[in-house]
Parts: sequence; structure tokens; C-alpha cells
Amino acid sequence: MMEKGIVHYGVGESIDAYMFIKSSVKGIASNGKPFLTLYLCDKTGEIEAKLWDISDEDEKNYSPESTVKLSGEVQNYRGRSQLKIRNIRLTNENDSVNLSELIPTAPISQDIMADKITQYIFEMRNPNIQRVTRHLLKKHYQDFLTYPAATKNHHEFMSGLAYHVVSMLDLAKGIAALYPNLDKDLLFAGVILHDLGKVIELSGPISTSYTIEGNLLGHITIMVNEIGKAADELGIQGEEIMVLQHLVLSHHGKAEWGSPKPPMIREAEVLHYIDNLDAKINMLDRALERVKPGEFSERVFALENRSFYKPMFQK
Amino acid sequence: MMEKGIVHYGVGESIDAYMFIKSSVKGIASNGKPFLTLYLCDKTGEIEAKLWDISDEDEKNYSPESTVKLSGEVQNYRGRSQLKIRNIRLTNENDSVNLSELIPTAPISQDIMADKITQYIFEMRNPNIQRVTRHLLKKHYQDFLTYPAATKNHHEFMSGLAYHVVSMLDLAKGIAALYPNLDKDLLFAGVILHDLGKVIELSGPISTSYTIEGNLLGHITIMVNEIGKAADELGIQGEEIMVLQHLVLSHHGKAEWGSPKPPMIREAEVLHYIDNLDAKINMLDRALERVKPGEFSERVFALENRSFYKPMFQK
Amino acid sequence: MMEKGIVHYGVGESIDAYMFIKSSVKGIASNGKPFLTLYLCDKTGEIEAKLWDISDEDEKNYSPESTVKLSGEVQNYRGRSQLKIRNIRLTNENDSVNLSELIPTAPISQDIMADKITQYIFEMRNPNIQRVTRHLLKKHYQDFLTYPAATKNHHEFMSGLAYHVVSMLDLAKGIAALYPNLDKDLLFAGVILHDLGKVIELSGPISTSYTIEGNLLGHITIMVNEIGKAADELGIQGEEIMVLQHLVLSHHGKAEWGSPKPPMIREAEVLHYIDNLDAKINMLDRALERVKPGEFSERVFALENRSFYKPMFQK
Amino acid sequence: MMEKGIVHYGVGESIDAYMFIKSSVKGIASNGKPFLTLYLCDKTGEIEAKLWDISDEDEKNYSPESTVKLSGEVQNYRGRSQLKIRNIRLTNENDSVNLSELIPTAPISQDIMADKITQYIFEMRNPNIQRVTRHLLKKHYQDFLTYPAATKNHHEFMSGLAYHVVSMLDLAKGIAALYPNLDKDLLFAGVILHDLGKVIELSGPISTSYTIEGNLLGHITIMVNEIGKAADELGIQGEEIMVLQHLVLSHHGKAEWGSPKPPMIREAEVLHYIDNLDAKINMLDRALERVKPGEFSERVFALENRSFYKPMFQK
Amino acid sequence: MMEKGIVHYGVGESIDAYMFIKSSVKGIASNGKPFLTLYLCDKTGEIEAKLWDISDEDEKNYSPESTVKLSGEVQNYRGRSQLKIRNIRLTNENDSVNLSELIPTAPISQDIMADKITQYIFEMRNPNIQRVTRHLLKKHYQDFLTYPAATKNHHEFMSGLAYHVVSMLDLAKGIAALYPNLDKDLLFAGVILHDLGKVIELSGPISTSYTIEGNLLGHITIMVNEIGKAADELGIQGEEIMVLQHLVLSHHGKAEWGSPKPPMIREAEVLHYIDNLDAKINMLDRALERVKPGEFSERVFALENRSFYKPMFQK
Amino acid sequence: MMEKGIVHYGVGESIDAYMFIKSSVKGIASNGKPFLTLYLCDKTGEIEAKLWDISDEDEKNYSPESTVKLSGEVQNYRGRSQLKIRNIRLTNENDSVNLSELIPTAPISQDIMADKITQYIFEMRNPNIQRVTRHLLKKHYQDFLTYPAATKNHHEFMSGLAYHVVSMLDLAKGIAALYPNLDKDLLFAGVILHDLGKVIELSGPISTSYTIEGNLLGHITIMVNEIGKAADELGIQGEEIMVLQHLVLSHHGKAEWGSPKPPMIREAEVLHYIDNLDAKINMLDRALERVKPGEFSERVFALENRSFYKPMFQK
Repeated sequence: MMEKGIVHYGVGESIDAYMFIKSSVKGIASNGKPFLTLYLCDKTGEIEAKLWDISDEDEKNYSPESTVKLSGEVQNYRGRSQLKIRNIRLTNENDSVNLSELIPTAPISQDIMADKITQYIFEMRNPNIQRVTRHLLKKHYQDFLTYPAATKNHHEFMSGLAYHVVSMLDLAKGIAALYPNLDKDLLFAGVILHDLGKVIELSGPISTSYTIEGNLLGHITIMVNEIGKAADELGIQGEEIMVLQHLVLSHHGKAEWGSPKPPMIREAEVLHYIDNLDAKINMLDRALERVKPGEFSERVFALENRSFYKPMFQK
Repeated sequence: MMEKGIVHYGVGESIDAYMFIKSSVKGIASNGKPFLTLYLCDKTGEIEAKLWDISDEDEKNYSPESTVKLSGEVQNYRGRSQLKIRNIRLTNENDSVNLSELIPTAPISQDIMADKITQYIFEMRNPNIQRVTRHLLKKHYQDFLTYPAATKNHHEFMSGLAYHVVSMLDLAKGIAALYPNLDKDLLFAGVILHDLGKVIELSGPISTSYTIEGNLLGHITIMVNEIGKAADELGIQGEEIMVLQHLVLSHHGKAEWGSPKPPMIREAEVLHYIDNLDAKINMLDRALERVKPGEFSERVFALENRSFYKPMFQK
Repeated sequence: MMEKGIVHYGVGESIDAYMFIKSSVKGIASNGKPFLTLYLCDKTGEIEAKLWDISDEDEKNYSPESTVKLSGEVQNYRGRSQLKIRNIRLTNENDSVNLSELIPTAPISQDIMADKITQYIFEMRNPNIQRVTRHLLKKHYQDFLTYPAATKNHHEFMSGLAYHVVSMLDLAKGIAALYPNLDKDLLFAGVILHDLGKVIELSGPISTSYTIEGNLLGHITIMVNEIGKAADELGIQGEEIMVLQHLVLSHHGKAEWGSPKPPMIREAEVLHYIDNLDAKINMLDRALERVKPGEFSERVFALENRSFYKPMFQK
Repeated sequence: MMEKGIVHYGVGESIDAYMFIKSSVKGIASNGKPFLTLYLCDKTGEIEAKLWDISDEDEKNYSPESTVKLSGEVQNYRGRSQLKIRNIRLTNENDSVNLSELIPTAPISQDIMADKITQYIFEMRNPNIQRVTRHLLKKHYQDFLTYPAATKNHHEFMSGLAYHVVSMLDLAKGIAALYPNLDKDLLFAGVILHDLGKVIELSGPISTSYTIEGNLLGHITIMVNEIGKAADELGIQGEEIMVLQHLVLSHHGKAEWGSPKPPMIREAEVLHYIDNLDAKINMLDRALERVKPGEFSERVFALENRSFYKPMFQK
Repeated sequence: MMEKGIVHYGVGESIDAYMFIKSSVKGIASNGKPFLTLYLCDKTGEIEAKLWDISDEDEKNYSPESTVKLSGEVQNYRGRSQLKIRNIRLTNENDSVNLSELIPTAPISQDIMADKITQYIFEMRNPNIQRVTRHLLKKHYQDFLTYPAATKNHHEFMSGLAYHVVSMLDLAKGIAALYPNLDKDLLFAGVILHDLGKVIELSGPISTSYTIEGNLLGHITIMVNEIGKAADELGIQGEEIMVLQHLVLSHHGKAEWGSPKPPMIREAEVLHYIDNLDAKINMLDRALERVKPGEFSERVFALENRSFYKPMFQK
Repeated sequence: MMEKGIVHYGVGESIDAYMFIKSSVKGIASNGKPFLTLYLCDKTGEIEAKLWDISDEDEKNYSPESTVKLSGEVQNYRGRSQLKIRNIRLTNENDSVNLSELIPTAPISQDIMADKITQYIFEMRNPNIQRVTRHLLKKHYQDFLTYPAATKNHHEFMSGLAYHVVSMLDLAKGIAALYPNLDKDLLFAGVILHDLGKVIELSGPISTSYTIEGNLLGHITIMVNEIGKAADELGIQGEEIMVLQHLVLSHHGKAEWGSPKPPMIREAEVLHYIDNLDAKINMLDRALERVKPGEFSERVFALENRSFYKPMFQK
């Protein structure tokens, strides 16, 4: 049984562990024989691996979304870690491992997150906002609780979407306490709905990619449409519908970032800020979690390619 | 009766004509007396005018969307023409003038345009595309035939929206004849629907401004929603719906121009080009229509502030 | 005594009030006689005024930073309100008015703000950070409590700098409670010091303009230097000094916004966000405070020239 | 004899065909022996190939612009197809293959294109425009009919330049029919001359690269100079010369795209649009020609790196 | 006779001087009477003036490029100086004033500049470069010595073009002495020719505007063509022609600044720098010439709208 | 003993020479054995090398900043030269080689450069400027004479910083002779101090990287602070200090290039130009030094990725 996560292995160390195959690509080596490049993960992260001289059966077995038991050694290949596999087999009933142990996932359970969000909706006082929010969350409930918030960059793990929303709700609550002009109902509804279109934009909770609809329309447009449909189904006609649509539409902040209209309502502007702040802190924490005091992190593409420093006085 | 249009009057000329008040702003002159700044138009264009020393009744009478009979003189004020009004009165039943003679409007009649578009829809072979297009056109039929295509820049006259669509359809037909891979049904439907959301984004056929929904959502988002609703109402489920939504969504070409997704389908790219080409030629024709051979036009803001030259050999 | 603030007067209303002269410019009218254009303010805002046919004494009396008693009428001049002065005189001992009643100022008293900041410093656990922060605040104490945070855009009123810092401290506290990896000492010190250089960049608490040093070096560079000097004077040599300098240096976020280094430390990134969020909410609140539900605000230059809508359901 | 084009071979398939060597680079393998990387093409496209353990004679034989007969197998190398050569030899007189069968070329014959362009020139009514256009076309006739329109991105095949011009002429004709203000003579001459400088900018019809003059001056400047010289030689002095120079100069539309002056004449603006539209449709068709309905194309760099979708209902 | 130049008059001072009318615009005052706005200059600068209640004769007399004798008073109008004219008359034979005394001109005489440039050409050792340069200078000799280098921003005075070239030649000589790899012949020829196209782009030495050819082609393209023609006429065929054309073509440095090719030859890059440096120092000197130590200049649009400070220790 | 520098070896040539190890990275080959990738240099340039099948002792010996004697062969690897090492050993006392012969260094000796700069300081007439400049140069004297001016792009060799300063001083002197308004003391001091912060920003004269302080604050901020401290230590209070700080602060010219304030003083603008010009000519000379007449250089990233042509007439 694996005792430490894959991200904690250094070059030269041997590994013997269960892992999950995220993707698998066949190639032909310079000796003319086929091989597989596997992208493997466990709860802590992922690593590229090479499986040389494969049979037809190997190719079929070690396909994406399979769980395997393997042993091998971590090597350095062009500056990145790579796993050289010695032995590998598919897991079977006798292996005491289950999928949820091998996939990065939110640090809070789905139940706790669900309860928290339910409570935020419960406390809303504007009935139109409350009804639309509850309706849409219910409609996409199961996917909302399991999907990631993105395919990369931030919250790109199982249940990342719900985790992002819960963090933002707490942040919104704290900010609303300091600036009393903010309309809490609107702000909380905006937080809950802003990325909900991702359950249609993305393919699923694991090995996530973009759907055709995701590519052609995007989660913002998808959710604006969904809000319109929800209002029709619920027979709601107040201005709240258009305003909620505006909050979702504008939450990327600028046209060049995907919002055809910039925030033009107080809560829309704040929603954009909260979304950014939570995403950035999530990326910062991840970039710095394996950095020692007095050192710089790797560059983070989604943070303008910056590298971050951990001060020596922050033990 | 007016014999030549307002745009053809030079500085120093006297005028005696019927005109339409587009907007009216009250001010206080340096002598402490109130005056009105009127924006007047006839079929050929518009002019700013000053009415000094007004009474309360004047203020009430000469409000926006009134029709007046006036005489005065064209003067130069800071480089622009300005009309100094000598006499003015509201029109009454005895004046043989009607609104349509005083407002810039498309050069083709609404009936002819309606027939032309109907014919394009009639020839569509894909039933899903045809039904959605017909349904939406019918739903907004009256407004579609009277609204301008914009509040300024291009086709900003009565029925400008329909005129823009008809020009684009003919252009699309010509291009499709040269590039046989293009899907005519999709392209024609895209042309008809691409700006239809303007009937909700804009306030009306004359003295046009943006509605609240226009400001907060914009005509692109509005029409994408409308296509979704139309499909629901008609019980259509094919991929055509998503593709039509993509065409409308992407027709501005780039995120910074208001399309959160760039064209990702052949016909979407061509639609974007046709829209631009027709709009630019419309602006060019207007900029050059009063320019003499061997001279430059005024600068046109929406054409990157360029000034255009009419060659001397083009009589 | 004035009963309502200057911003609440509409065109056509008469006014009889004490006001403060922010600036004064002499001109020559078209009749060849000199006049003064005065920029007047009270606690609620400001207005431009014209004083015609002035004497030499008038010109001397009604110079900037004088307090006057005047009566007149609000007029519309090219779309903006302008005050036409009927009577005006300098205030004297018999007028029961004092400066602080005529100048926009922070909604919390200087004493309360001072106590609050002292408490935040008191709770710091890192002695180097605490000592430098306390030293610099003490050095510029009086100016810090009275200066605005800017000459325009946000917190541009008396004590605006301290008010901005206090709001940001509360915001920082709320955020630090949600993201436990944040180093509170560093974040709070960053908040307190980030704009402290403005007491050298700007000319004073009222009629504020830029000093020569403010123009040539800017508040960021000024404060980075000050931190270095403070460390020398206090004999502190830890890495905290360089890190605090980095927080101040990077708090505008990007080179093109005036920070030659982008945030490269977790707390620096968060500081940049908190600064922005508080400034934006301050601007939003001001833009919306006189807007009725269902209407749009004026455009706000510092918020990318956007106009903001107040929903009808937000009474 | 080859039965299907190189682009239709999948990974793992064997090939036995005539091919043309576009370029050839020598390298040293990890075993210390020299090898050649060959870029091979046939009429349908190109592929990279490796020839291992080469002799000095091999190196000499398999140089650029040779024709070879080879057999081998298509493999996957880092996500791209690569040909592993088993046997290779130069072609000789007994091989019934000629160059034109191995090189991508325009889908219309040079004769037909030449006739079509001649007809367009014949119909011009402005003698100055007609004479300059005919003179320059005649001067560069042979190269015009064989050169590509570019080294990559669009129309980068033999006779691509003439093919691009013919497509644009038909497009120009269609557009001119719809917008009668357009000066057909000027527009058609602009189309014919706009890229003619490429016969000097580029090195030749195959294995095309940039000449020194092409790099230092560019085809736009080259052709503007050529028009001036032609006018001198023909003794023409009308404004048409300057206007034609402007059309060529401005046809890239913006300074940052290589036109030091933007279009400032109606036909110049339309020329820019027609050029773009034909180039984009050419790229789109090529990107989509091997894409199945329901799938996305590869990303196209010259189309802002977009990937294009082929709808499922477009069989 | 005027004793001090117009730029040295302050608000409130009376003036009695000869001046030159650069341009003249008729307007109608609020009392309905016509007036002229004159832009007047003397050797030191220019001022706007108003002439009220004009007769038809006045309008005819005080047209552009007339010389007048006038008296009046300098006033402040919206922050700028404006001359209120009391008396004005056209100059006649009895007035001991001539044009050259009233127009800003280069500080060195045309003869001295001509000699200096001749000497630089004389010292060239590459015969091709020398012959082309001499030929083109001779062809445009008179205009070259009298034209300004621009209509505004820098060297926009009579003989400004030659003065700019002479300054740049000296600068080029100094730089070439420090970096011996530079080809002096090429660099000096580039300096002499780089802006010579302005004699065709601009309308003349005074009241300068753009010609049609200047607008449609620009001085860069014009001079590149001229170099080509000169080579033809002189029967020169060396690579020097293309290289000189490249220097002229690329001297604005970047596509977005009007050079379709960036500098790709050592001397082209240096030429671009010398051109910029001389232009910027010229603008800086002009901006600072009336600024007192310890003060800031007005903002200079062509220097990115910066304002410049004159240190107090620079007496 | 090596007879020609490393940059002059072509593919296929054997080499037998002393070289210096700039950096060293361990890898695992496909046969599972460890190898070293060494970056080697001599006075003329650098090359990548592979040392296969290494022992633990090899790994220890061939670490960065060691000097070695080696023989091997130059090969082509993916288009770049690579050295295949046959024999390698550390140098010992018997080898008649010393470090300075193996490291790229300035073409003028440190002594001559030091004398030259001393003379420039000696001639300054403003005592405040002279004292601060002398003080700071003395404080960092040894590092100033040995550090490079950058880690890459320009003057990235030993003593490159001093060499860059000396070249700029001569350039400044030449320019100041032509434009007499320039304050020589200020300009020369600006040249000497502008990059002096690099002795703290960078790690040392060889194998140079960025220090933590260099990353977090940058050489501009570092030197602005140093000037402030120097003034304190010397008891100088004149405006010269702030002005010198401004020159250093603004010498990158624009915010996006790292200067939070643009040049706002005449000498600051000129300093920025001189810095750029010397850096660009240095890069140009290096790019062209191995290019034959009639050929283009490799692309130079720091010169906007341009490639430069050496004309055929420049032998």
C-alpha cells in the first residue's frame, strides 16, 4: 500500500502503489516497438509514465479511467519527473482500493458543502431570487456536487466546483458584513449560479474535457439561457431574472475575458472580485504548498506566469 | 414646402421647411434667459438649432418627436453648421406633411424587403433551421421591419435593420455561389437572426436609445436566449439549435468586440465577414455621398477615424 | 445655516449657504470685464460658480481655501450644474461655521480610526514587522490621519487615507479568517504602509495636488525608501524589511499600473486585491448614492467609464 | 504507382509511392551515425521522414527538389505522423511520373486562369488603369501563373497566386453588382496587382522562401515601385497611378499588418475585405476537408489559432 | 516695431506689433454679427486672436498668409492666451518688415546648412551611395532647404527639415566615431534621404498641410519610389539601392509607426534612433524654454503627454 | 592549447581545448545510466555538451565553475551545435591556463575603465552630484568593475556593467557637445548610477543569476534606495538627490518596461535613449559578427526577434 503521495517522490526513488490512469497515448519507439505514455494520478497529484514494448492486450488494458497497481522508479526526463514502470497490472476485487482514494478531490465532503449552500439559499429573503436559485441548483444537483470548477488552473479536482462556490459564499458573507449597501440575496445567488453552466460545458467529474456545447457556447451563455428557462418554468417575471442573468454574464469582468457586458450592477462587480480572489488564493496555495521557506515556486501560467517566494520568516 | 434636404444647405443660406425634433435640451443663456437646443432632422440628415428666449409653452411644445414648420438661417458655430431659428410652430392638420417624409428611412419599402426575406426562408431545405428562423421572424415581425440596425454608425435609420439583412442576404447568396462548401440554409438563417435581438436591445424605430435589457444583456445574448426558447416551443432538438446560437453568439468575431466565442464554424466566420462588409460599405457610401471628386470626406469614427478620398477620375 | 448639501440642489433652486473655495481662476468676459470662476464645496460635494464684474478686492478675497457666505441660483451650463452668485462675502467671527463642516471628510472620527489601527499593530507577533510599522506610522502620524487617499477617484476627502486603511484592515481580517495560510502580521503591515507615501506625494489634506517629489518619484518609491530608512534607524536586518518593501512596491499589481515588480508573495497578491476591492466599492457606493432604483448612474472614469444600474427591486 | 495521397495514410499503414523532396537536413543519431530528415510531398500534402545510417552518396542524392520512389511505414512521433523509410531511390527515365503530379497545385489550369484574367482586363474602360495593369501582368506573366500566393497559411501551392486572384475577381464582380457605387475598373485592377510583388518577394514556385529583397522591402513596397515605373515607361500621368499605388499599399488594412497607410478610398477598403475573405475561406476549407461531421479541426495558426467544428447535420 | 516676441507677452499686457496670419476662420457671434478667428504668428510662436464685427472687406483682407500690423491686449480664454485686437491693418511698402522676420525658422542659415550637407556628401567613398544621394538632394534642393520637417510636434518651422538633417548628421558622425562597425556612407545617406519625401508629402514651407499624395502614400513610400527612379536614371544597379530603400522604409522603427519593415540592417536601426533622439531633444528644448527652474512644463502630446520638470539647481 | 574559440568550430570538427563549466545538469539516459549535460564556455562563446555513463566522481568533479581540459567532436543536435566529449579531466597546476582566459569579458581592461570613469566624476562641477556619485561608486567599486550588465541579451560578460557605462559616458559626452542645454553633471551621474543596482540584483560576475532581492525589488528600486541612503550618510539635502533618484527610476522609459515614472526631466529622457542605443548596438554587433556579407543573422529575441542582414558591399 502506498504510504506517501506521488508528488512527494524524488528522482531515483522506487515506488509501489495504486494509481489511476487519466490518459494513455500509444507511440512507436526508435526500435520500432510500440509503447504507451500514461498520465497517472493519485490523490496528491500526477506523473507521466512510460510502458515499453507493449502487447495488444496491454494497450487495451491500460486505457483511460482504469485503476492499476504498479511498481517502478522515478527518473528525470528533460527536467520533469517521469515514472519508469517495472511492473503493472489492473486492480481486481482483492485490492482494497477504491476510486475516491486515487483522485484529487475537495477537502470538504459533498454533504457538508450541500448543507452549507442549502442554508445560504434558505436565508434569502427575495422570493424570486430564492426560487430561481433553488430550482437551478436542484436541476443540476448531482453534477454540481461532483464536477471540477475547471479543467486546469484552479479547483480542477473532483467537487472543485462546489468547493469554489462554498469558499466564495463565505467570502461574500464576510464582505457583505463590511459593506452594508450590498444586496446579500443577489450576491449569494450570483455566487451559486455563476459557474453552474460548467456542468454542461465540461464532460464530467474526471478526465474532464470540453463538450461541443461547451466549446461553441461556453458556460456563461449556457447558464444565462438556463436562468431564462427557469423563470419561464416557474412563471417568474420580475426584474430579478434579467439582473441574475447580468451577474452571470458579466462575472468574467471584461469582454476580452469572455463577458460580453462588464459588471454594471454593484453586486456584479463584487461577484467578479470574489471569484477572482478565491481562484487566485487557491492557485497560490497550490503553488506554494511544496515550496520551502527562502525559495521560489515554479512559474504559474494562470497567474501571469509569475513565480512566488516563500519568506524565510514564514516557517 | 422644402425643396432640398437639410444636409444640402450651406452656411449663410436661409431655410423654410418642415422638420422633426429628435431631441430637445433646455439651457440658461448668459443673459439669464432660458433657451432650447433642438436636434432637428429631415429625410436627408440632421442639424442642431438654437431657440432663444423661450416661454414655458415653447418648452412644452418643442419636445422630442414633435413635427415643426420653421424658418431660419444656417450659421457656423465652432466648425459645425447650426441653425438659427427665426420662426417656428408645431404642424397641424392643414400641413400636408407626414412623419415618414421627415425621417431617414431605408431606400426599399418594407413590403419588398419582407417579400425578399420570406423567399429566402421559403427556399431553406433544413426543416429545423427553417422553422426556427420563421418562428422568430414572425414573433418580432413588426419591429424587425421598422427598427434601425443601430443608434449610430451604420443603418441607423428607420427600417435599417431589415435593409441591412436584405443586403447581407444578397451578399451571402453571391458568396455561396462561389464557395460551394458553404451551407446556404445555415448562412441565410444566421444573416436573418444575427441582429434580430436589436428589437429588444433598442427602444424603437425613432429617437432610438438602449433599453435597460439592452444595456445589461445586449442583443447577442438576448437572441441566443430567444433561439433556445423558440426550439423549446417548437419541440426541436437537433444540433441546428446550438449551431444557430453559435452563429449569433460569434458574429462580432472577437471577445473584445462582444462575442464571447469567436466563430468556430465555417458559416459563422463568413457571417461575420458579410456583416462587416455590408456595414462598412454603408458607412463609406454615406461618408462619400457629399464629397466632390478630388476631396476628402470628414473623418468617420466607426471606420477607425479615417477620412476617405474620392478620386478625380471618378466623376 | 445650510440645511441640505450642495449636491441636493436642482437646477432653478435658490441657495443661501456657507461654502469653502477650493480653487479660483480669473477670466475676462466677452464684455471685457474680469470675472472669477470659483470651485466651491461643502461636506456633500462641490459646484462651479461664476462671479461676474469683479473688483481687485474681490479677486484678493475670494482666493482658494477661503470660507464664504453666499446666495445665488443653480443653473444648467452645458449639461452641468453651475451656481450663479448673487451675493457673496467672507465669513467672520460672528458666523457660527467652522471649516470641518464645509469639507468632505471620512465618516468615522480620526480618534476611532487611530485606535483601531493601533490595536491591529498591537496584535502583531512578528517584532520586526511590528516595529517598522509602528515607527513609520508614528513618524507620519498627523498627516496620515488627515490626508485624503487620492486627489480624485476614490477616498479623495479629508482623512480618506486613514479611512481606506481601516476599511482594508477589516477586510484583510475577514479574508485571513477564511484562508489560514495567510500571514496576518505581514498582510496588516502591508495594508497600513501601502499608501503611506501619499503623505509625501500629495500636498496636504485639502485642495490637494501633487508635490514635485510626488510627481518625480511617486508614493510607492517614496515609501519603499522610507521602509529602508526605518530599518536602518531601528537597526533591524531581517528579511521582513525586503518583504515589506516588496509588498508596497507591488501593490498596484502590474508594471503598467505603476508597480515595477508584480506581487511575488502570497500576501502581496492579496494586498493588491484588498486595495482594489475597497477602492472599487467606495467608488461604486458614491456613483450609486444619488441614483434612483431603475436608473443608471453617470459614467465613472476610474471604473473603465462604466455606468451602473440600480435594480428596481433594491428600494 | 501511388493510389492515394500521403495525407490519407494513417499510423501503421505501409506506403509505396513516388514523392518529391521539399527539404533535407543532416543529423547525427545517438549511435554516432549520420541520418537525413526529409520533408516529402505529393499532390495532397507532406510528411516528415527519417533515413537512418546514410552514406555520403545518400546525402548527395536525396537533396531538395529531387524526385524519389520509396517504400516505408507511417509511424506516430510525438503526436505527428512520420514516415519510416525502408527503401528509397531516385527516379529515372523509366518511371512514368512527372513533377507536376507530385506537387500541390491550383485546381484550375493556368490556361483557364490566364484567359479569365485577360477577359477582366479587356473589359476595363479606364485606359490608364487598363494599360498599367496589362503592362505589369505581361512583365511578370510567367511567374504570376506559377508562383504560390504565400509560403504558408493560404494558397501556398503552385499557381496559388493566380488562383487567389481569379477567386477574388469573381468575388469582386459579385460584390460590385450589389453595390453600384464601386468603380469596377479600379477594384479589378487592385485585385490583379495587389499581390503581384510576390513574384519578386518570393524565390520561386516550389520550395518557396523569401528573397533578400522580399525580406528588406516586401511585396507591397515592391509593387508600389513597379506601378510607378510602369507609369513612367508608358508615359501615363493621371491620378490613377497614385490611386492604384494606394490600393496596393493599403491592402493589408492596418499599419500593424504591413500597410503604412490604411485604405482611404472606397475600392481600397473593399479590396482589403475581398483579399481577407478569400484567404480565410481557403484556410477554412483546408482545415475542414479531412474533419468528420461532429468533430473539430486542428488549430489553425493564421486564423487566430482557432479550431473549427463541422456540424453533424452537414453530411 | 516689436521688441519682444509674442510668446513673451503675459495676460493683461498690451501689444503693438507686426504679425503673420497663418489661418483665418469666419464665425457668427451670439449677437448675430460675423467675426474672424485669426491664428497669428511671429518668429517666436503663435497666438489665437478674435476680430469682432467684421466687414466684407475685413474678411477678404485678413486671409491666410497676409502680413498685418496690429495692436491689442492679451487675455485669458479658458486657460489659454488669446489676443483681443483693437486695431489692425495690412502692411504696405512703408512698413520696414519682411516675411522672414515674422515666421519661425531654423536657427542656422540655409547657406550654412547647404554647405554642411554638401561636405558630408563629398566625403562619401561608396560611389553608388554618393551619386544617388547627391542626385536626389539636387532634384529637390530648393524645397529641401525651406520645408519644415513636420506640420506639428517637432521642427515644424521654416527650414526645419534641413535643420533636422544637419543635427542628425552631426549626431551620426559622433556615434560613428564611437562604434567603428558602422558604415558612415550608408548612415549619412540614410540621414539625408530619410525625410526628403516630405517635400512631396507636405504642401510648402508655410501654412503647411498634407498633399493628397502625402495622405494616400506618405513620405516614406514616396522617397522609396524616388530612390528607385534615381537609380534607373543614373543607371546604378548595386545592392546599395535596395539597402538605401530599406533604410528609408524602416526609419519609423515599427509597423504601427508607419514602417512596413522594421530595421533589419545595422545602420537602419541606428538611423531610427538618431531620428528619434534629435526629434525628442528638439521637443524637450521647446517645452522647457519658457519654464522656470522648479516648475513643470505644459504636457507635450508627442512625448506621450508628459510634463517636464526643470530642476531648481539648473539656473 | 586551444587555437581558435569555440564559436568558430563547425559540425564535424574535432576539438581539444580548455573550457569552463557554466552549469551542469544530471539526467538518466534511455539505457538507464546517468549522464551530465554541461554548458561549457571559452572567451568566444558557449556550447552544450553531453558526458555519457558518468561515475559518482564525474558528477562531483564536473560541477559548475570548474575548469576542464577536454577533447571531442562537434555534432548537430536538433539544429544546434552540441559537443560530444571523448576525454575530459579537471585542470591542475601544470596546465598553463587561467580563468580569465576562459570567460567572455569586456574588451577593455578594468583599470582603463576605472580611470576613465574617475575622470568623468572628477570633472563634475555640481558638488552634490559629484559626492553622491563618487560615494556610491566607491561603495560598490569591486563588484561594479567585475559584474556583467545583465544575465543575457547584452553586455552579459564579465565587466560588462563597467564597459556599458564607459561606452554610455562617451556617447553622453558626444551628445552633450551637440545639445548645449543638457546638464553634463547630471547626465554623467545618471549614466554611472543607472545600473549600479545590478551589483545587488545579480549574484556575481560569472554564472550569474538573480538574487532574491533582485527578484523582489529589482535594480532600479535598489539603487533609488541606495541614493537616498548615500545622501543621508553624506548629509546632502539639495534637490539633486531627488533628481538623481528620478533619473535612475525612469531610465527604462515606460511603466511596462519597469520604470514606475517615465522620464520627466530632460537628462532623464536622454539617459534612457543613450542606454538603449548602446545596448542595441552591442546586440547588433554580436548578432552580425559571424554573419557573412549577403546573409542574415539568427533572430535576436531582445531586438523584437528580428534577423539582421549584412549588405554585400560591406566587406
